[in-house]
Amino acid sequence: MTGLTHFDAEGQAHMVDVSDKAVTDRIAVAEAHIVMSSDTLALITQGRAKKGDVLGIARIAGIMAAKKTADLIPLCHPLPITRVALDLTPDAQLPGIRISATVKTSGQTGVEMEALTAASTAALTIYDMVKAVQKDMVIGGLRVTLKDGGKSGRFTAP
Amino acid sequence: MTGLTHFDAEGQAHMVDVSDKAVTDRIAVAEAHIVMSSDTLALITQGRAKKGDVLGIARIAGIMAAKKTADLIPLCHPLPITRVALDLTPDAQLPGIRISATVKTSGQTGVEMEALTAASTAALTIYDMVKAVQKDMVIGGLRVTLKDGGKSGRFTAP
Amino acid sequence: MTGLTHFDAEGQAHMVDVSDKAVTDRIAVAEAHIVMSSDTLALITQGRAKKGDVLGIARIAGIMAAKKTADLIPLCHPLPITRVALDLTPDAQLPGIRISATVKTSGQTGVEMEALTAASTAALTIYDMVKAVQKDMVIGGLRVTLKDGGKSGRFTAP
Amino acid sequence: MTGLTHFDAEGQAHMVDVSDKAVTDRIAVAEAHIVMSSDTLALITQGRAKKGDVLGIARIAGIMAAKKTADLIPLCHPLPITRVALDLTPDAQLPGIRISATVKTSGQTGVEMEALTAASTAALTIYDMVKAVQKDMVIGGLRVTLKDGGKSGRFTAP
Amino acid sequence: MTGLTHFDAEGQAHMVDVSDKAVTDRIAVAEAHIVMSSDTLALITQGRAKKGDVLGIARIAGIMAAKKTADLIPLCHPLPITRVALDLTPDAQLPGIRISATVKTSGQTGVEMEALTAASTAALTIYDMVKAVQKDMVIGGLRVTLKDGGKSGRFTAP
Amino acid sequence: MTGLTHFDAEGQAHMVDVSDKAVTDRIAVAEAHIVMSSDTLALITQGRAKKGDVLGIARIAGIMAAKKTADLIPLCHPLPITRVALDLTPDAQLPGIRISATVKTSGQTGVEMEALTAASTAALTIYDMVKAVQKDMVIGGLRVTLKDGGKSGRFTAP
Repeated sequence: MTGLTHFDAEGQAHMVDVSDKAVTDRIAVAEAHIVMSSDTLALITQGRAKKGDVLGIARIAGIMAAKKTADLIPLCHPLPITRVALDLTPDAQLPGIRISATVKTSGQTGVEMEALTAASTAALTIYDMVKAVQKDMVIGGLRVTLKDGGKSGRFTAP
Repeated sequence: MTGLTHFDAEGQAHMVDVSDKAVTDRIAVAEAHIVMSSDTLALITQGRAKKGDVLGIARIAGIMAAKKTADLIPLCHPLPITRVALDLTPDAQLPGIRISATVKTSGQTGVEMEALTAASTAALTIYDMVKAVQKDMVIGGLRVTLKDGGKSGRFTAP
Repeated sequence: MTGLTHFDAEGQAHMVDVSDKAVTDRIAVAEAHIVMSSDTLALITQGRAKKGDVLGIARIAGIMAAKKTADLIPLCHPLPITRVALDLTPDAQLPGIRISATVKTSGQTGVEMEALTAASTAALTIYDMVKAVQKDMVIGGLRVTLKDGGKSGRFTAP
Repeated sequence: MTGLTHFDAEGQAHMVDVSDKAVTDRIAVAEAHIVMSSDTLALITQGRAKKGDVLGIARIAGIMAAKKTADLIPLCHPLPITRVALDLTPDAQLPGIRISATVKTSGQTGVEMEALTAASTAALTIYDMVKAVQKDMVIGGLRVTLKDGGKSGRFTAP
Repeated sequence: MTGLTHFDAEGQAHMVDVSDKAVTDRIAVAEAHIVMSSDTLALITQGRAKKGDVLGIARIAGIMAAKKTADLIPLCHPLPITRVALDLTPDAQLPGIRISATVKTSGQTGVEMEALTAASTAALTIYDMVKAVQKDMVIGGLRVTLKDGGKSGRFTAP
Repeated sequence: MTGLTHFDAEGQAHMVDVSDKAVTDRIAVAEAHIVMSSDTLALITQGRAKKGDVLGIARIAGIMAAKKTADLIPLCHPLPITRVALDLTPDAQLPGIRISATVKTSGQTGVEMEALTAASTAALTIYDMVKAVQKDMVIGGLRVTLKDGGKSGRFTAP
């Protein structure tokens, strides 16, 4: 199965051997958004200014989820994460919230999955806290926008 | 903060008191998709027929993630899940994979978050296994399409 | 070993058989405090008003920890928690933060351990976020103040 | 928010970037105690000599909890712990049990939180096993007594 | 796939729907053994009498593992366990340790997997603590000896 | 307690201090088997060719369990695993399935426990998926067959 490194020559899944890879500084950034009505967005942004910090809680959920990535994604290597940061920005055009998650490590493999897991968990946490007022919110645009460090070099998405 | 039940009158987050809610049969269905190139999709679907079962592994990851939902989403109640099933369908039009996750429980609160977590983790697992050949895949359309059981009644998305 | 129900007649630890106990509504309240300098307390309370919500994050950590209690305390039964709420109150007299955690369930055994775990984890989380400015903070007064529901009846601490 | 390194310039929580810190040997010692009646203490110490090893089980719970620290404390970095040891000493003066937890690592950040988590979980485990005979035990004196290794130097509490 | 209930008509794995099953009292007993040299066994049994309680720690590990079963076994349902007990008996004939694990629940599906997971984890914990003196120990005889409660009736192994 | 390094001079369990050990490449291989009737084995092997991939799911469960080893085995050190691979081979002579698990790390202590945990969890997962048709399957032969790297040198079992 050319290219799918998570399978051996017999097509059996394995956690890829990274023991010969160099320990290098690695970074990944992932983003996502959650689309909601303007009224729902107003509830969140008003709460942020006054009380009931939806975005603050989603940020913590994303940070904690990054640390659980290897527990969630079957073939992911456990990694000593050295940084996790999330930005959650209300966007009236969407309308909704834009999420960006940055993860760093010094390790033998990249942290794209950690960044994606942080961003998606933050989005799910927003959904959970707001679903009493709106059930048809949609999460989308979950993707990697930057990956650097390691042999495969720098990747950026437009 | 009208409507945001996860916050009390002072705006402090709490896990909502569901102890007076009836134990009823509840179901939720969530869906998501991951968009990739036709070539990448072909690698997955060929592997499925022959060897290297990307979709089978993503399905297992989604089922296991449903059981971790209360561990990931801060204000979610732990629930005795009674069923989890995922459908992962290649879609040449997308091109990519369409994911649907169904979760059931007999409990005091709904299982939307479990279904959403299952669907998003299955999508992330596909990303992980295929990222060596394509990094700019995008996960989207993550939403609840059915919720039933409990006081708030039946919700369906078009 | 009279009274120590977690050990059988041979002195071997076991998870006590609660299968014949009635499922009843149960509640427990635990409290704790963390003592710090007035200057450190001011950093926290100013941050709360403006930015950097130490107490909001500690509250979330306490809620999530309540759900992990059976994973932390070896002989604790897993329980379907139906409510978790934490109050974190700055106290200039202490000086420091007073923490109160309330947990409810409908189950076959009590939730004292869940309330204690929530309170102590909230206190530890405050310590973690503030330790860069003060290392000699002390956590104390961790105890159960209310327990009700179940055969052993109501317990209140003065 | 001067000094509170867990918040960025905008007051948003993040897991602090430690990727530029040196990997050094680090140690932390934390202590706690649990106060109970002399009769309860006697039950524990007699059990230790004969059967029903409360302190042995609390020690194991503390060791295992140290490994879960990054899962409990939101902004804690995951660390490759290289040693955990707990001393649990009956103290007739207290009366109760004194707990000391020592944790070591070779890493980019300290292990105070791991030592504190080990000590508090050991105390909570004692509470759990003895609560059938005494409910008004109090856990206190939870603090760091030694921290060494890393840029901020050696800290000792009197 | 006749009989393999964990797969649907299309051969796709799912967590079986148990929502229509009755909640009944269920029990399962599993056993295992670990074979070692007489010298190694003597180290364990002497330690038990004096100091260094290998069997006590293995018992706690087994109890805690029973609570993690649904996290380890992909298609297992989470269950509210109501009892876990382990017997660990030195057997000079083996020579080694015989392990028996009993688990109870009131639920919609059985607890065989919980009993098996408890027994195997206790055996693995013994291996871990003794491997410094003997590496060629073998764990075997891991099986269910009793299962009762639920529609499929009572099963006993000779 | 000569030789049992997991206990200190007083017989108290601790997580052994490995902070002075060199970080070296380490590998361990463990094996196990599960014995069943020929009919049950046929169900599995037919499913593998057609649909219902019991062995594929057991392989994933084993890989994920390797990452949970330090969470299951009380005195195990957390380790940055760099490779996990499992072979599951039907054996008509047994009759049943033979399992082999290989784990690698670059760390300060060995990965025997990770390999054993992967093999035993894969065996338990097979049991879970097939138990509807046969309850008296037996898991055995769980042992380490290779360990290399680190000060104690190479160990191979015949």
